[in-house]
Amino acid sequence: MSSASGTGEEAARRANRPLAGITVIDFGQIYQGPYATLLMAKAGADVIKVEPVGTGEPLRVRAAAAKGAGLPFAMLNSNKRAVTLNLKDERGRELLKRLVAKADVLLENFTPDVMTRLGVGWEVLRAINPRLIYASGSGYGLTGPNRDWMAMDLTVQASSGIMSVTGMPDGPPLKCGAAVVDFMSGIHLYAAVMTALYERSVTGEGRLVEVSMLESVFPALASNLGMAYSQDGAVPPRTGNRHGGLSVSPYNVYEAKDGHVAINVVKDVHFQGLLRIMGREDLIGDARFATNKARVAHMEETDALVEAWTRTRTRGEIVELATQHRLPVAPVRDLIEVMNDPHMHERGTLEWLDHPTFGRIVVPTTPLRVHGADKVETVPSPSIGQHNAAVYGDWLGLGADEIAALEADGVI
Amino acid sequence: MSSASGTGEEAARRANRPLAGITVIDFGQIYQGPYATLLMAKAGADVIKVEPVGTGEPLRVRAAAAKGAGLPFAMLNSNKRAVTLNLKDERGRELLKRLVAKADVLLENFTPDVMTRLGVGWEVLRAINPRLIYASGSGYGLTGPNRDWMAMDLTVQASSGIMSVTGMPDGPPLKCGAAVVDFMSGIHLYAAVMTALYERSVTGEGRLVEVSMLESVFPALASNLGMAYSQDGAVPPRTGNRHGGLSVSPYNVYEAKDGHVAINVVKDVHFQGLLRIMGREDLIGDARFATNKARVAHMEETDALVEAWTRTRTRGEIVELATQHRLPVAPVRDLIEVMNDPHMHERGTLEWLDHPTFGRIVVPTTPLRVHGADKVETVPSPSIGQHNAAVYGDWLGLGADEIAALEADGVI
Repeated sequence: MSSASGTGEEAARRANRPLAGITVIDFGQIYQGPYATLLMAKAGADVIKVEPVGTGEPLRVRAAAAKGAGLPFAMLNSNKRAVTLNLKDERGRELLKRLVAKADVLLENFTPDVMTRLGVGWEVLRAINPRLIYASGSGYGLTGPNRDWMAMDLTVQASSGIMSVTGMPDGPPLKCGAAVVDFMSGIHLYAAVMTALYERSVTGEGRLVEVSMLESVFPALASNLGMAYSQDGAVPPRTGNRHGGLSVSPYNVYEAKDGHVAINVVKDVHFQGLLRIMGREDLIGDARFATNKARVAHMEETDALVEAWTRTRTRGEIVELATQHRLPVAPVRDLIEVMNDPHMHERGTLEWLDHPTFGRIVVPTTPLRVHGADKVETVPSPSIGQHNAAVYGDWLGLGADEIAALEADGVI
Repeated sequence: MSSASGTGEEAARRANRPLAGITVIDFGQIYQGPYATLLMAKAGADVIKVEPVGTGEPLRVRAAAAKGAGLPFAMLNSNKRAVTLNLKDERGRELLKRLVAKADVLLENFTPDVMTRLGVGWEVLRAINPRLIYASGSGYGLTGPNRDWMAMDLTVQASSGIMSVTGMPDGPPLKCGAAVVDFMSGIHLYAAVMTALYERSVTGEGRLVEVSMLESVFPALASNLGMAYSQDGAVPPRTGNRHGGLSVSPYNVYEAKDGHVAINVVKDVHFQGLLRIMGREDLIGDARFATNKARVAHMEETDALVEAWTRTRTRGEIVELATQHRLPVAPVRDLIEVMNDPHMHERGTLEWLDHPTFGRIVVPTTPLRVHGADKVETVPSPSIGQHNAAVYGDWLGLGADEIAALEADGVI
């Protein structure tokens, strides 16, 4: 990893990476914050992960509960430098101010006002560095009547309405099995920082930027909200694997010989293509299936027609035929298939890494592909405080004696 | 909406908005692309939505299928200007080149190579405007063996593994009811553009940036991938509403008197707080519940203990008590509750809008809050080609006769 020194502009002349020369003070924890700063590291920024003295951030602690529970930490903290810092100690807060004076971005996803109560909130830090971009990730935002609701991925899947639209019509509300709220808000937080970084290039000034988990997932309910309107405000039913607005058909998961496939055909001409590969040219022109509107009105018949065919084929056969006819079809894959996906490995999305703690694991690179930029080679996630000497010594200029004293006193 | 003229730097001196002066040529369709450009418009960019002559983009067409199906279009296309353009006509491609010469960003989420085959791909357009940032959103990316798999939200929920981890252990794979793949990749696409815009402020040069739907959701499976590792590579079971890695407890959805609540307690001290509000101080110190690791080992007992209490209270009572004790708890809310949420309305996340086509609807603003910037007041989504005269005439400089001829010939 390159050491960060000088201004962003100078460093960018040296490295062909979008965020070369940008330094990030990273208080991210669990998933939301660390995902945002992982993408910054993968775009070439120098990300300094700051953790509490002792146990480190909660995701390190969670690793004790189950064998694989450390893997997410390894996935999300590649290419970062790790230091410890005790913000409850006055000397710790002074150290933070010295870090901030040299940094471009500070990111945290504590509950609202934690940093302000410690005396190191946005107003204090901007006075030290007017170019600082301060990024706050929270559950419900920095204002509003529910500001103090504590939030995790699961609870915001509940309060946002995602659970109410996930599951079968006659079953209970279900969460999405992936941590979509944490990651959706994490990438929004990254995006907010980038927006402010661009603006700073014009104005010369930093900003406080803010993302709430609840707000970052609301737009993804667009289809479902449409359904609520179509029912004049009645609560929409859960739709299983059907379209959230029940306004597209065929749109479902169908049984294949060796599992399931998902099929979503919007355009009428594509549905005719599907009839052809199903050997049902006889139905081209049938009024029940001629338009999406007609198929929506005959949704049960449309689904039965499609599944009668998919049951006779394997996932691979179905997807190959569909791709030849440019139809949106995919296999339902399990995680072992996904982590070994030849496509993602060939594209460099996923790579096998020999991690010093976890052994041979798959880690992702950034989904943000900037063509022509140099790749940031993966460096395994750091151990707690691994870079105390490099950051506090080499970068901030503290002497070895000072660092030893701060460590002895539990400040770092 | 402000008209865009002059360089970004000049315009930014006039408007206190992060993307003031930035012009976006927006070929986005359905959800992924339009969400990215909605956030650009809400940050102050001039977004010119370009649609096929006649029916417009697919989401307009879908509106015919069900009463509420137009609502997503209205939600995602506020604050944009709309023009029509026929890229299959040589004069249409020439018009695009003139637009690109004056623009900062071109964004499209066609299948790979559509623009290249039309003769207006990245290589051609960068020669016209070396500062152009060209953003491509696709299902599986611009390279790799599955590049040509057609993709929609549903199908990538299947191929990415999201479905395999959503649902009950003994039930079928289920999709997340929200369009999380479309929106996750949409915000990544926004983020990629912002990254390149920042970099351009240093280097003066544009980039081709690329986001695939598949890659943008992989990281959100972190907990579930951890579970796969803990099982030495066996396929992890679906976990219903439990933690994807089965490494946190209590973490579940519990019945309340009037619905359900989600509870996720990670820290041991928080679980002690939960025992107190449940009136079960007698269990503080019980080895079965003393640590997260112990509770994970006694997950059924832990869940039963919590639900025995939640069944005796309403969602509101539970959340109020939990918030007093700083525990992450939330009600499972339906979409009618969510769209009327006083918290989001008070924060300005949601607003009621009298839309010329859809009547009184709720629309969201951007989840990217840049403190101190001026708000972009909502302008309802445009009708098809609404701004042909403004964009092709006032901005590009075509005469009224030229515009009339292009319209008559189906070029715009």
